[in-house]
Amino acid sequence: MTKTSGTGARKVTRKDVARLAGVSDAVVSYTLNGGPPVAPATAERVREAVRLLGYTPNASARALKLGSARLIAVIVPDSSNPFFAALCQAVEDAARLEGYAVLVVNAEGDRSRTLPYLQSLASRQVDGVLIASPIDESQVAAFNSSGVRWTMLNRSAPIAGTLSVGLDLIEGARVATAHLVGHGYQNIAFIGQARPDDHRYMGWRAALKAAGLDAGPAIFSPFSREGGLAAGRELVALRIRPDAVFVSSDMMAVGVLRAFHEADLAIPGDIAIVSFDGSPESEYSWPPLTTLRQPVDAMGADAVAQLIHPEPGSQGHHRFEGELVIRRSCGC
Amino acid sequence: MTKTSGTGARKVTRKDVARLAGVSDAVVSYTLNGGPPVAPATAERVREAVRLLGYTPNASARALKLGSARLIAVIVPDSSNPFFAALCQAVEDAARLEGYAVLVVNAEGDRSRTLPYLQSLASRQVDGVLIASPIDESQVAAFNSSGVRWTMLNRSAPIAGTLSVGLDLIEGARVATAHLVGHGYQNIAFIGQARPDDHRYMGWRAALKAAGLDAGPAIFSPFSREGGLAAGRELVALRIRPDAVFVSSDMMAVGVLRAFHEADLAIPGDIAIVSFDGSPESEYSWPPLTTLRQPVDAMGADAVAQLIHPEPGSQGHHRFEGELVIRRSCGC
Repeated sequence: MTKTSGTGARKVTRKDVARLAGVSDAVVSYTLNGGPPVAPATAERVREAVRLLGYTPNASARALKLGSARLIAVIVPDSSNPFFAALCQAVEDAARLEGYAVLVVNAEGDRSRTLPYLQSLASRQVDGVLIASPIDESQVAAFNSSGVRWTMLNRSAPIAGTLSVGLDLIEGARVATAHLVGHGYQNIAFIGQARPDDHRYMGWRAALKAAGLDAGPAIFSPFSREGGLAAGRELVALRIRPDAVFVSSDMMAVGVLRAFHEADLAIPGDIAIVSFDGSPESEYSWPPLTTLRQPVDAMGADAVAQLIHPEPGSQGHHRFEGELVIRRSCGC
Repeated sequence: MTKTSGTGARKVTRKDVARLAGVSDAVVSYTLNGGPPVAPATAERVREAVRLLGYTPNASARALKLGSARLIAVIVPDSSNPFFAALCQAVEDAARLEGYAVLVVNAEGDRSRTLPYLQSLASRQVDGVLIASPIDESQVAAFNSSGVRWTMLNRSAPIAGTLSVGLDLIEGARVATAHLVGHGYQNIAFIGQARPDDHRYMGWRAALKAAGLDAGPAIFSPFSREGGLAAGRELVALRIRPDAVFVSSDMMAVGVLRAFHEADLAIPGDIAIVSFDGSPESEYSWPPLTTLRQPVDAMGADAVAQLIHPEPGSQGHHRFEGELVIRRSCGC
């Protein structure tokens, strides 16, 4: 879909542009590709010639010549989730300090898309890829053959064959749930993903077990605002209503809050909430949410550093811990 | 940062990979670049050989050969704004139906970044770029010389020299404000961007003028949740408090809502709100916001169609209108 100069016509070259603009080949190249500064009026004349002739720089040849492209990509499962929006922002901020721009690719929770995206990015001279989206561990070898450097971001635990960076979700959920236990709540529910190996579910269970409490009801629902709303309505309808709930993400929690408001429940008077992520959404909900904040800035910066300045042969996992941010929803 | 086979060493070729894997050159190519399907065990052998030899396909040469790359990009001012997240989602949905993947690039409100991004994307064989971020009209010629097709998205009005798609913001703000007028509110404030040519500001003014009402207070603040919170606090502190407010975006409106909750104002009893965009945030705030919904799916699909299947020599502007979504914040 790039412009061409018409079927059968001789391809317009940089020489043609230089001739029409009355400048040297080099000046055309400087104007289009960067390089020593070109006087604005001259650059304008070159661009006018480019436009008149319908000249298309040979993009791939140019990429070969330019060498390092100073561009990285980040693959996320859902860029509309404020947590991933904040994580992308952190990656962009860290990359900019190193002189890199960032492309964001949305895998929309479909694991089968990640490898083709990685290969496509590799073929476009992207310098490195952060994968913040879940992958099948069996694909690590294929990822390593893609020809592009990559690092896992948003990993709760190590993964063989690659570097990874992320928050310990088990410990984070344990801390968040233990805070509700400390308030004296006895019947503490869980709202989150329907995956038995979900680390937040495991952390919730661990906190209750350590306190000698029975597990409260666990309600599984999609990882979205709508999913939170449905789970919240299900919780409200229980015959024995829990007095507190741990919700796996702020995005789900705003849906849960809406279900509680609709049922005229006082928060935290009738039911307390602690949530997860610490995204901006948690600060602007009503009431503002007590939440386990993920250190997105530090994790994003660390992942960018691993990607751009890797130590030779480096593998392993960089483990981060969250911080409980106390607001109004827990009863403090 | 792509892997190399070591300084001074002969470059590993596809033939080397084929020999080690015991397959033909063509099978290596099919495995790495797509093509006729390769048996999984054979593909695995090829990838193992790639890994062992540290083979890097010549990315640029491959891109030249593959031709059309089936990839478009969208440049947005702020991908963490739920409106732009929804717009990107709409573009991705429409592009996927055409067999294209989408890269998202965040200009972070810095107009000077857009042209270098466009040029960088052009040099990476991206098939087209949607620009949903404000641009200087003086740069259109430079954009047109980038060598990549592009279309403006999220434009309120035509722009000379390019195709554009977007909502009429003046009319949208007029409809939203007229709804508050219809409720009988007399003192209707404006919260939005500090730009005298802002089309939403103009629409708010037009609605009040048409109703014979004086302009209420206009509070200008950054386009963010924090900006909305600051503007909301400023509004609460006014000696004569307005009875209604039109807020330029849902993202600002959640900040405004928080300021009203903090001041214990009843919404809409003490003050009514109508907002703008119709992003998911407006549905999950408390109370849910009456908002002028932008038809992001239709606009995204139209922009993708313009980009991928342009009519020859097409220019001009595709104008969309919003729809007022009635929820609880207006007093209906």
